[in-house]
This record gives sequence, structure tokens and C-alpha cells, in this order.
Amino acid sequence: MSERTLLSLLPAAQDLLFREARTANTFTDEPVTEEQVQAVYDLIKYAPTAYNQSPLRIHLVRTDDARARLLAHMAEGNRPKTATAPLVALLSADNEFHQELPALLPHFPQAKDLFFAERPVREESALVNATLQAAYFLLGVRAAGLAAGPMTGFDFPAVQKEFLDDDHTPLMVVNIGRPGANAWFPRSPRLSYDEVVTTV
Amino acid sequence: MSERTLLSLLPAAQDLLFREARTANTFTDEPVTEEQVQAVYDLIKYAPTAYNQSPLRIHLVRTDDARARLLAHMAEGNRPKTATAPLVALLSADNEFHQELPALLPHFPQAKDLFFAERPVREESALVNATLQAAYFLLGVRAAGLAAGPMTGFDFPAVQKEFLDDDHTPLMVVNIGRPGANAWFPRSPRLSYDEVVTTV
Repeated sequence: MSERTLLSLLPAAQDLLFREARTANTFTDEPVTEEQVQAVYDLIKYAPTAYNQSPLRIHLVRTDDARARLLAHMAEGNRPKTATAPLVALLSADNEFHQELPALLPHFPQAKDLFFAERPVREESALVNATLQAAYFLLGVRAAGLAAGPMTGFDFPAVQKEFLDDDHTPLMVVNIGRPGANAWFPRSPRLSYDEVVTTV
Repeated sequence: MSERTLLSLLPAAQDLLFREARTANTFTDEPVTEEQVQAVYDLIKYAPTAYNQSPLRIHLVRTDDARARLLAHMAEGNRPKTATAPLVALLSADNEFHQELPALLPHFPQAKDLFFAERPVREESALVNATLQAAYFLLGVRAAGLAAGPMTGFDFPAVQKEFLDDDHTPLMVVNIGRPGANAWFPRSPRLSYDEVVTTV
């Protein structure tokens, strides 16, 4: 059997999320609505994080002024696509996520003080768990039939200062929209199963 | 419109991957086959990483001896489910991923030396990008109709020493299988859209 039939997820959904979805370099003019982003978030919020800490935070860059301020800090090669994407999202990790923990983990509110009293511990945990959520978000954008183009080529301290505060660490900038003409390069090779998986 | 109809991904697939999928605490005896894991990997390998660096590595713990060695380093609360899961996977980040970069990024092989010559840079990049891939893997396991239970409650240095080497950093241990009786706790609350998303 091929992986298409071994999986419960139907082939069309496999293609939508993984096989045919690509990082787009060009976009159509079709806007990405608030309702679409909310639908994405309300789907991906259920995917797991440690202690349900849910540290991902999302800034939607919608005004011309904010777009210009972001572009100034993007790597040069990323500027054209970030300038033209219908929507740009800045993903960050909330290092003070523990404030929400008693509400997020009602059966174990002590986790806040037992495990996350110290800032360096929170920063490490927020980075890992917000990055997991960033991946869920990328697949959620694809679930909405849109292309998601994640980028880490930007000036992190400058973007943090421009849009965030000391408690929020930037993770990535994501271009979102319907793919335009010649939206992608040829697919690069992937590592084979045997190169990645070891049985012990 | 609800998010169910705003998304291109059909509601059954939304449920399979996000809404009804849960971290299982009990499992049936049904084995997880090599073919299933290969189908999961051959699906999720396409999801994006920076420079296509693909640093995730997977150890499948299949022998009794390896399972016992892993259990010794798990947090006490995680031991029963890790002892009984049909399959346990140890996910790690390959800090020497740059060796594969010329093959993975054939249009820009210089990236290996331009960006990843220094080990601390590689470690940071491998952590973030392997964590993205860990999230893709968790959703891929769900795409196979299986429950994935990610855990970070274990002795990281001991697990690294037992199963890996200095070039590979543990990320998480994942219990995999069909959910058994009383497999999950009630779903914990999630942050609302307005608590997570800011428009600028």
C-alpha cells in the first residue's frame, strides 16, 4: 500500500496540507479576511502544547504603516514578497504565558509556580511550544486553502522593538494569500525515511 | 459562517487532526507498523523548514531492552503510558544537519558555509526547525488515525547519552497507538482569538 491509502486522512487533504502546498513567492490580490484567520486559529488552538501553555501570539500586519515598518527590518530577499502578500503575520512567543496557566490548566493550577516560576525556564518552554504552534498555524493556513510562506530572515531585535515588548520573542514572519503566477520554485529533495528514522 | 465551512479542509479531516484528536493516556494492543510510520514520514517530510534543512531525526523504540532503558529516564507520571504504548518514538534535532544541506538545497549549496558554519547557529536553527517538524509529525500520526502523546517530562541528558550522541539533542518522546479505554481527560480550555491575535 502507498502512504495515500495507509493514512486515514484522505488523499485530497494530504495534498492540501502537505504534498501540493508550497511556500509561495507571489500572490493574487484576493484579501485574507478576519473570518478566515479566526477560522484557522479556532482550528489549530486545539493542537497540543506542554501543560496546555499555548504561548503563541499573532500580530496581523494590516495597515500600510505597520507593513512599512516591518519591511524595513526584513532581509532584502524577503521584502518583495512581504510587500505584496495580502496578509502578513508576525508570530511570537509569550514568555509570560504562565499568567494564563491557571485558566488553561484548571486541574493543575499549581504548575504555574511549580514549574514556571523562573523566567529562563519559561523562555525555553515558550520557544519550543510556540514553535510547535507556529507549525500548527502554517498547516492551518493551508487548511484554509491559502499559501503560508514562513520566514526567519529579518532583524529579530528590531522587529521585537517595533511591534512587541520584552516579554514577547519573535519567531517568524508569515506571508499569507492565494498563490499567484509562478508562485514557487521546483520542490527541493527531502531526506529519505532511512536517513531520518532509526529503530532501536 | 463557522470555521468548519470557511476552511477548504473538510470537517472530518479537521476533526481527525485537531478537534477530536487528543493526547491519549491509554492504548489498545494494536501494533503500529513500520509501514504506518513510513507513510507518516513520507507525508510530513514535505512541510517547510528554513533552507529545507530538515533536522528532525526519529528513533523508534521497538525492543524490550530499549523500552526499559527509556523508561528509566522518564518522569514517574509518564512511565505507565510509555510502558504500554504500542510504539514510542524519540524525536531529536540533528545539530550537524548542514552536512546534508548541499543535497537538500541544490540551488543554493553555499548556504551550508555561508549561514551554518558555526555550531551555536546550527544548534539554534536545528532546535526551531526540528520542533516545527515535530509538530508536523504529531499531526501526521493523527493523519494515520492514531493518537500521538508528546512528552517532555524526561531526563534529557540521560536520554541523550542512552540513545543519541553529542550531535543530536532530544526534543520529545511520543507515545503512539490507538486510544484505549478512558484514554483522555476532559479537554482543557483554550485562549480565545482575541487573547492571542492583535491587529496592527
